[in-house]
Amino acid sequence: MAVAQKISVFMEKSSWIRKMFEEGTKLKKIHGAEKVFDFSLGNPNVPPPEIVKSLLLGLVQELAPGMHGYMHNAGLPEARSAVAGQLSIEKGVALQPDHVVMTCGAAGGLNIILKTLLNPGEEVLVPAPYFVEYGFYADNHGGVLKAVPTHPDFTLNIAAMAAGISLRTKVLLINSPNNPTGQIYSSAALSELSRLLTEKSREFGQTIYLVSDEPYSKIVYDGHQVPSIFSHYPNSLIATSYSKDLSIPGERLGFVAVHPEAEDVAALLGGLTLANRILGFVNAPALFQRVVAGLQGACVDVAHYRRKRDLLVKSLRDAGYDLINPPGAFYLFPKSPLADDIRFVQLLQEENILVVPGSGFGGPGHFRIAYCVEDPTIEGSLPGFRRAMERALNIRESELTP
Amino acid sequence: MAVAQKISVFMEKSSWIRKMFEEGTKLKKIHGAEKVFDFSLGNPNVPPPEIVKSLLLGLVQELAPGMHGYMHNAGLPEARSAVAGQLSIEKGVALQPDHVVMTCGAAGGLNIILKTLLNPGEEVLVPAPYFVEYGFYADNHGGVLKAVPTHPDFTLNIAAMAAGISLRTKVLLINSPNNPTGQIYSSAALSELSRLLTEKSREFGQTIYLVSDEPYSKIVYDGHQVPSIFSHYPNSLIATSYSKDLSIPGERLGFVAVHPEAEDVAALLGGLTLANRILGFVNAPALFQRVVAGLQGACVDVAHYRRKRDLLVKSLRDAGYDLINPPGAFYLFPKSPLADDIRFVQLLQEENILVVPGSGFGGPGHFRIAYCVEDPTIEGSLPGFRRAMERALNIRESELTP
Repeated sequence: MAVAQKISVFMEKSSWIRKMFEEGTKLKKIHGAEKVFDFSLGNPNVPPPEIVKSLLLGLVQELAPGMHGYMHNAGLPEARSAVAGQLSIEKGVALQPDHVVMTCGAAGGLNIILKTLLNPGEEVLVPAPYFVEYGFYADNHGGVLKAVPTHPDFTLNIAAMAAGISLRTKVLLINSPNNPTGQIYSSAALSELSRLLTEKSREFGQTIYLVSDEPYSKIVYDGHQVPSIFSHYPNSLIATSYSKDLSIPGERLGFVAVHPEAEDVAALLGGLTLANRILGFVNAPALFQRVVAGLQGACVDVAHYRRKRDLLVKSLRDAGYDLINPPGAFYLFPKSPLADDIRFVQLLQEENILVVPGSGFGGPGHFRIAYCVEDPTIEGSLPGFRRAMERALNIRESELTP
Repeated sequence: MAVAQKISVFMEKSSWIRKMFEEGTKLKKIHGAEKVFDFSLGNPNVPPPEIVKSLLLGLVQELAPGMHGYMHNAGLPEARSAVAGQLSIEKGVALQPDHVVMTCGAAGGLNIILKTLLNPGEEVLVPAPYFVEYGFYADNHGGVLKAVPTHPDFTLNIAAMAAGISLRTKVLLINSPNNPTGQIYSSAALSELSRLLTEKSREFGQTIYLVSDEPYSKIVYDGHQVPSIFSHYPNSLIATSYSKDLSIPGERLGFVAVHPEAEDVAALLGGLTLANRILGFVNAPALFQRVVAGLQGACVDVAHYRRKRDLLVKSLRDAGYDLINPPGAFYLFPKSPLADDIRFVQLLQEENILVVPGSGFGGPGHFRIAYCVEDPTIEGSLPGFRRAMERALNIRESELTP
């Protein structure tokens, strides 16, 4: 066999999200794109803020010498400085540019964090449901992902976390607003979590790091805000990206920020910078680092996403679906009317509706709708969602009847 | 300790190149940039071809919807197609767009190749001297780097390779033109190498893949060309980048191409695409993929580099240094006049000349000069190179005298 055994296994089970994405491509070829209602991929459909284009134009017209050249592996000084300034305002803790490492998106950021922290066999604890790629990221660096349940509304279950932490736990990884649920972890929950981690770190004589993956932190509604982990727990790192704030996921720009009072902060930052280099990222893409140095705090108009969320939540509830109204991100995570979520996702697929089974996120019995799509996709899908619900109820009834 | 044990060790021994780079930053602060002659980093100093700017401007002005969005993890169809077309001309083998995976530079490309191919403990054989990062790349994915010697002029030593290949060898990694020597591996050498790999693959009943890292393939002089591994050996992959061709190393764009007749080619391509995703690259940066889709074959004016090479080679030889006149890349790899290359590099440093010891490349007794620098740096360094040689000769003499 040409490829490594592990890669061969990974390819087989690969990601449901990508599977649905590819299924969608097929269905669109058969039925035409306008007849397929594709909610499978979190690819922002709102255009970037105007300032992205104007900064890009200015930079490209100017073309300073060395603009596209190598730099310090941690990033351009002006980008790190701009990020540190903005975070100092947003996160309630004063950061220096040195506390920031520019990365190839949040995915790049999480990989350099896990490369830096994990010894072989150490565990990454994550509340489920969770972004499915986390399992691969932990495995890439010799770690093991361990999921712990959340409450039925997907808020943090501190008792479950306490039960999940062991001597092997090196990282607790949260994602708020959450993909796939859209839930935000409250300040009260973070306080409890911080107490738990402090206590367990002391008990085991080794620090458990809290890592917050927060690419959706600016995609929030109804006055909600994402509480800062930095104001709760010093041994913490943030990984995030501009993919959703600025609708530029293909450009691969994000950063890691380390709490200035984290234990061994210099070694952590040195490790992150080294990992950025040796994993092959080398540095985050130069041009977009220059862009974000000039537009801290900018964000797409989230009113677009809120309108889509409101329409879908109401319509799905009217059709009999059971779901929370999520305060952030652009995902819904309704209960599947059939216990077997994969079976229900297939019913939806027969209606040309593409969603991802909750099983793919460690959240079986649910399915994920990515509503960052055009309005006609949402409107066109509603009859199909209603029919699939009716069919599911009929199936349930027929299976209950002996 | 916060960081993983391995990362802690890596940080200590880290890269000489970066060490010298940081040393240079310090010296420049003390003496002023114009008094420090920094040959430590392969950061292209020739401006990008004009077409890079004009394509960028056109793309940014147009700003098509979704231009910065997610895409297939293997890259944009137009970029893959353009690369396949160009490679079909350059490499003597017809490639389809599917045989190309766009990557975050050659470093990203090599990492996804090794992630795809290596089972734990499998070996990557590399002719020394070699780019020091290869050791980290192999280790990232559970592999082990094993260096084999080359001839004194740094050409391939096939007998040494034959002796180095074992049942654990999965990959033979070459880099031509070579960093740090500038040497190109000839077509005759590749033929012999191909015979050796075919024979050993048969003997051990498992394929040894030939991987060619060739970011300097267009930086060649005096009519030299880099022979195509694709026309020699089917189980082969190319990893390369636009960093040097286009002087855009900070933008992180490159690709991997798989030989269309490689064994298990579909699994290889699937593995590379998966690895691109799960290592956190996700996809190569979108905007520069669009740029390179429009400028295949473009290259900086290598006459600049040739002039610098000629000036340095002549001046160093006049000063008593022993070195080959390299046919490619922008590095010289002279013999150190002291057996201890680190000691000699320190002598140079006392002259405010920054180079990298050959020990950092598995080539002790030499040092690397990256001559992609401004002319005044070269001219200003010559008296220092002469003085360091004199001091080295005095040291040698004094140490010979009892």
